[in-house]
Amino acid sequence: MKFEIMRDHLMMALNDVMKAVSQKTTTPILTGIKLDLNESGLKMTGSDSDITIQTFIPTEVDGDQVIRIIEEGSIVLQAKVFHEIIRKLPTSDVEIEVREQHHTLIRSGKSEFDLLGLNSSDYPLLPEVQEDQKFTIPADLLRSIIRETVFAVSTQESRPVLTGVHWLAKDGDLVCVATDSHRLARRKTTLPALPAESYSVVIPGKSLNELSKIIGDSTDDVEIVMTKQLVLFKSGDVLFYSRLLEGNYPDTSRLIPAEFKTDVIINSRALLSAIDRASLLSREERNNIVRFTSLDGNVVEISSSSPEIGKVEEEVAAESIEGEELKLSFSAKYMMDALKAIDASEVKIQFAGAMRPFILKSVHDETNLQLILPVRTY
Amino acid sequence: MKFEIMRDHLMMALNDVMKAVSQKTTTPILTGIKLDLNESGLKMTGSDSDITIQTFIPTEVDGDQVIRIIEEGSIVLQAKVFHEIIRKLPTSDVEIEVREQHHTLIRSGKSEFDLLGLNSSDYPLLPEVQEDQKFTIPADLLRSIIRETVFAVSTQESRPVLTGVHWLAKDGDLVCVATDSHRLARRKTTLPALPAESYSVVIPGKSLNELSKIIGDSTDDVEIVMTKQLVLFKSGDVLFYSRLLEGNYPDTSRLIPAEFKTDVIINSRALLSAIDRASLLSREERNNIVRFTSLDGNVVEISSSSPEIGKVEEEVAAESIEGEELKLSFSAKYMMDALKAIDASEVKIQFAGAMRPFILKSVHDETNLQLILPVRTY
Repeated sequence: MKFEIMRDHLMMALNDVMKAVSQKTTTPILTGIKLDLNESGLKMTGSDSDITIQTFIPTEVDGDQVIRIIEEGSIVLQAKVFHEIIRKLPTSDVEIEVREQHHTLIRSGKSEFDLLGLNSSDYPLLPEVQEDQKFTIPADLLRSIIRETVFAVSTQESRPVLTGVHWLAKDGDLVCVATDSHRLARRKTTLPALPAESYSVVIPGKSLNELSKIIGDSTDDVEIVMTKQLVLFKSGDVLFYSRLLEGNYPDTSRLIPAEFKTDVIINSRALLSAIDRASLLSREERNNIVRFTSLDGNVVEISSSSPEIGKVEEEVAAESIEGEELKLSFSAKYMMDALKAIDASEVKIQFAGAMRPFILKSVHDETNLQLILPVRTY
Repeated sequence: MKFEIMRDHLMMALNDVMKAVSQKTTTPILTGIKLDLNESGLKMTGSDSDITIQTFIPTEVDGDQVIRIIEEGSIVLQAKVFHEIIRKLPTSDVEIEVREQHHTLIRSGKSEFDLLGLNSSDYPLLPEVQEDQKFTIPADLLRSIIRETVFAVSTQESRPVLTGVHWLAKDGDLVCVATDSHRLARRKTTLPALPAESYSVVIPGKSLNELSKIIGDSTDDVEIVMTKQLVLFKSGDVLFYSRLLEGNYPDTSRLIPAEFKTDVIINSRALLSAIDRASLLSREERNNIVRFTSLDGNVVEISSSSPEIGKVEEEVAAESIEGEELKLSFSAKYMMDALKAIDASEVKIQFAGAMRPFILKSVHDETNLQLILPVRTY
């Protein structure tokens, strides 16, 4: 393998591939990145066996030659040191040449590295993906769906399936649900071209967070292929593979109350700031609980106290409060996460009583539902 | 105590005082900040017993009323939570009122905090400083002096005196020296108004780093008062006290060679980048060593190798190489630190042989001297 490449293109593609590489892998070759050069361009692959990212740099981009191929071939290079070297090279051109025994020369300006590479045939092969069942989704919509759900996954390994987000594609809707059993986030999206067959998969939260970084601020379409073992996202010249979580995702629909006793419509930012301040006093403690009390005159009181630090009270004007008087406590963190996930200036909060789950939505839009279980403090 | 204050002024002063407060103190009251309000304004004090920072906010700044005093007094408040509360208050005005049993109300908009304060008379008193022996130094010059020396202090507690920078004021010169016994940084500054009496103190490196942050990008004069136990820096409305390190600082002048065998003049940035790249291969290893070899034609070769990763060679054009041929090895980190500390595009490096210390200076300026001990590798 021997080629010359423009450093910036190599660097951008490497930045993506590096997101899949972990130094803590039990498979030594996965600390490396695989380079495959053929006549159409350079393919690079990185993986931690849960996530695999593959990028492609074509020989020409917008009519400019990006890669000059002298000899095709492939090699595996230590990811971290290769990435650092490319980042710090003195000029904008790089020459990479594989010699005998996987010795790999990297030249730029008067700098010459001789890295000990590994045999690319020892690198795990990507699974074959049947592409007959796929759908597309605009990148910005995909980012919203991830942002509004993934924060609610469980971080505890006691029920592994809850560390992922449940994606159910059925009857033209994509429904994404995450829960850690104390709160729940659900996003419904109607998509025009979903496959006729229904799909139910659980995608690890970590994969979705990395995917969100990879698609960045792109507005192009992302192609999604779901299989029984993995899901593949295609965004431009990047392929993002994630394994799926095994096990049945619980039926969460029965958790969501159908009848409510108190409805509050309130400015999202004002409520968020008040809860943020109130939580300053309880943050150091185990539970980080704030109290929410409806007062006369469409006012909500947010309060909190800590025996060692002191107490705080704040009144927030609501747009409207309808139904029964209300006094309950909840996790400040869960409430702040839910308010941040709802992209609206006014939110509607519906309570079914002090010890039943309550839900939050935008006043204008039912597609994003956030649910929180209160905490008993009285 | 009761007063109203503009939040921004309180916040800025608090940001400074917080730099002295540590959560890891063994003296519980030092997790707090002391507020003293008298007719001229608000004084706040924070300390970790090594460093003490005191700020003052006058009642009027540039003709604008900043503080409205209702009742003078003092209190100690938990630093971390007080700082967070002020940062997150909803309006630009704050009212602070101390009631019975040190209960302290903080009000802003519709938000009201009731913090449990502590008795201010339990807070340690600041030492009295005799101000008859003091001198001033422009803030930007003080920052340079700190930047060019403090990185070279020892991080090991085996010889505590080496964790500080030795400041010697004598015969109109301020000489600042730091060494960890593998490298040394020395900065000489001629100051017009040094006290007639000579002073020799060792200031903890940590104090100087914090001081540098406190003076920020100010260009005003900083007043320095040295006593036997402590040094006081006055910058605007901020007083910065640091304890001194005990023990005799070693005589470092005999470490610096007087005769040299090879002189190299070279572009600082080109050498720094080449060493940075070469060190990529040795960074993971214990020593992080690179080799420096003089070649014919005013060329220096920087190289490094790692049995597991590979090797790297790079040629750097020198302005001139005079004297004996040279081949030696040194710590890439020490060399990069020294090059960064010298504010010059061309540096002069003077070698006294492969196993003797070598020194670096700007080609134009002798005041900043950096010394490094080579490492035996051949």
